[in-house]
Amino acid sequence: MKHKKSDNFKTKSVSSSLVRFALDFEPEFATDELKQVAQLSLFDWFVVSIAGQAEPVSHIVRGQISSEGGNEDCTVIGATKRFPARASALANGTISHALDYDDTHFAYLGHPSVAIIPAAIAIGEKTNTKPEKFWNAVILGLEIVTRIGAWLGRDHHLTGYHSTATAGAFGATIASSKLLDLDEKATNYALGLVSSMASGVRAQFGTMAKPLHAGMAAANGVEAALFAQAGLISNPDALEAEHGFADTHTTQNRDTTKALNGLGEYWMLKEVLHKYHACCHGLHPALEALLQVREKNNLITTNIENVSIAVPPRYLKICHILSPNTGLEAKFSFRLSAAMVLNGQDTAALSTFSSNACKNPDLISLRDRVSVTPNTNLGETEAFVQVQTTNGEILSAKYDINRSLPYKFRKEKIMNKAFALLGESSALELWDLVAKGDPMEFYKVNKIGLN
Amino acid sequence: MKHKKSDNFKTKSVSSSLVRFALDFEPEFATDELKQVAQLSLFDWFVVSIAGQAEPVSHIVRGQISSEGGNEDCTVIGATKRFPARASALANGTISHALDYDDTHFAYLGHPSVAIIPAAIAIGEKTNTKPEKFWNAVILGLEIVTRIGAWLGRDHHLTGYHSTATAGAFGATIASSKLLDLDEKATNYALGLVSSMASGVRAQFGTMAKPLHAGMAAANGVEAALFAQAGLISNPDALEAEHGFADTHTTQNRDTTKALNGLGEYWMLKEVLHKYHACCHGLHPALEALLQVREKNNLITTNIENVSIAVPPRYLKICHILSPNTGLEAKFSFRLSAAMVLNGQDTAALSTFSSNACKNPDLISLRDRVSVTPNTNLGETEAFVQVQTTNGEILSAKYDINRSLPYKFRKEKIMNKAFALLGESSALELWDLVAKGDPMEFYKVNKIGLN
Repeated sequence: MKHKKSDNFKTKSVSSSLVRFALDFEPEFATDELKQVAQLSLFDWFVVSIAGQAEPVSHIVRGQISSEGGNEDCTVIGATKRFPARASALANGTISHALDYDDTHFAYLGHPSVAIIPAAIAIGEKTNTKPEKFWNAVILGLEIVTRIGAWLGRDHHLTGYHSTATAGAFGATIASSKLLDLDEKATNYALGLVSSMASGVRAQFGTMAKPLHAGMAAANGVEAALFAQAGLISNPDALEAEHGFADTHTTQNRDTTKALNGLGEYWMLKEVLHKYHACCHGLHPALEALLQVREKNNLITTNIENVSIAVPPRYLKICHILSPNTGLEAKFSFRLSAAMVLNGQDTAALSTFSSNACKNPDLISLRDRVSVTPNTNLGETEAFVQVQTTNGEILSAKYDINRSLPYKFRKEKIMNKAFALLGESSALELWDLVAKGDPMEFYKVNKIGLN
Repeated sequence: MKHKKSDNFKTKSVSSSLVRFALDFEPEFATDELKQVAQLSLFDWFVVSIAGQAEPVSHIVRGQISSEGGNEDCTVIGATKRFPARASALANGTISHALDYDDTHFAYLGHPSVAIIPAAIAIGEKTNTKPEKFWNAVILGLEIVTRIGAWLGRDHHLTGYHSTATAGAFGATIASSKLLDLDEKATNYALGLVSSMASGVRAQFGTMAKPLHAGMAAANGVEAALFAQAGLISNPDALEAEHGFADTHTTQNRDTTKALNGLGEYWMLKEVLHKYHACCHGLHPALEALLQVREKNNLITTNIENVSIAVPPRYLKICHILSPNTGLEAKFSFRLSAAMVLNGQDTAALSTFSSNACKNPDLISLRDRVSVTPNTNLGETEAFVQVQTTNGEILSAKYDINRSLPYKFRKEKIMNKAFALLGESSALELWDLVAKGDPMEFYKVNKIGLN
């Protein structure tokens, strides 16, 4: 069976077109490739959530929902009790973004999974949803958050809005509405209503409010969909109407094709990027390039004369701490993280970025042989590295993290991350649980032992 | 004892100055006049909430919070059970704005009480607050929502934001923080955090999402303050920082003096306008002017030759339905509502604006003698009316609803509204309950019988 193509969307609004698309998209239309990407994202989401469950903000958000109590419908990471759907989405969204180690989509500079998956898990569990339908809602949510985010555009981000929170709420609404079996009218009311809820400003970056934004996005999506289910009438066009969300939250540079072109044929969610290193995303292209050089040439540190890393100029202001002293500083240091990779350290592990690492003489010696230069010809997801060996050879590699990697490679990298964060046996146990895709079994995640 | 003056605010940010002011403002600084205005507002708020408790959106929001359940901490209008603080604020804010019959402040084109009072009641009840402290928090919340709203300015409204929802969330945060005894640091974190939550677009006007905005404002204030109490760290300057709320949600036309001038000396909350007629606010200046003419001259309808009403031009587009057919249309008709007032009908009663009234021959005959003309010299809260009598006399009056009326007059008008909406004995019972100002007794409001 083939899913309807997007020709019929051309004259309609972005929101009504996306709603129609979501209503028509049935589980049997999802390809194996889409399901594989969704499964990797769900697994990666659980991995970073479990790893982040003891962060201060995770304790705070669980404390807040515990002080409210409520019907024990939905699982929360790190909690023995269950909670109402909105509370569960708020907590899980926050917890999963606490480490800032979750996935990213450059089409809208946002983190898709932390907004979509907590909403889908909450409504999925509340409504006793079967796996097939659950995967379907996750796929739709991930696709629509990306398309709405790309349509709102760079201006939305540049003005100061946090796309993870704003676009995220729209995607979470679609996932929630689909799981609630809302009809077209009600889904439009849900999307209209969340146009009054979607919020979050970038001034919060670097504080606990940033991970909370992800929780808010998920919670707003859940709440809007539940209100629409209960009959609340909003302006169904509030996303695009005069004095609506797009009108107030971005410029006229909106490109409708980014939201609607190829809908159902080409899936933007496939370009999601998972983080394989426990540090600033700006370092990742260089680290991947260095990994390539190292593995291809069986390079050992004593054979390294010097290392040169070329990156887009803006990263020199973001993550170029020359001689870091703390674990946090290490996460923003091209030179030290490069030394870690070349030294064979596991940069997927949180503990690798420690103050001890900053004092390690081997790493410092290597770090001091690394230089970083700006290069305006490189895209924001690219890096070019050159390693000069002691016998005068030049080994080089260019890497772009924004390209679709084969499933096998992605899975291997994410599994390595899971091993580093949770330990091997817990990671494998989690993989099996995620593969089932059964919201009624996700509570078991809180029984998986940490190493 | 005298409260500190505002001289020390001049070099600080708006948000930190307002927080400092709120922390310093102790119950003993509140004058009798401030307490009287707060008491009228609280009474008026309860009146419209009780009257609006059976509206469809009121049922929906109570249904939503009931489906979540939770600790039975706080009263909700029209519910037998109590609910967690956020849920109570969400529901009560929505219910109180359901009829659009609550108070307004023209300094920020917003409805102050529906955002502030539900938050104060929720946290007041949850924390077993004494009356003196409760009034103090209500006064602060009402003053600060007005000042932040006036500072965000007309551009905020014109862009498409709903000030009731946005400015409302900041005021609700201050009231909640004060009741929770948050210190200066935590109050700034609460205000910073709500900068990521405050939301609501004007595209929703005319739908159920508009009253929900009031509930969202109250709920966001409650949630932000509780998060700050639990130790959540936001950007404490997120209201004014780069990529913060003001930066993203309004223009550079912000006037700091509107937020800070005369703080603690002059109280803007005193200019709050209560609605005395169950119809569009745009009609009120004309109706008050006609009431004056009628009462002063003992005018009877048979002596009226014709009536001329002059209003600011924009109202001809908002509330000038020439020959209304339904109760809702009657609420937007200068001509019919003028006929009602001149005919001695009680325009404070919801039932006066009915389809029957639209068919009443006496009212129609009078309505057809009323003409409405635009006048650019009139302010947005003014009207000028002229009544020509059958013996050739011209009786005229000009009225501006935006002026401070003596307490006695305001109380009389609000009491008349309460009589019309709740019946005399219920209204008087409610007045006594409100006068106590005891959050631990507000649950009794649900025992007051409707007539």
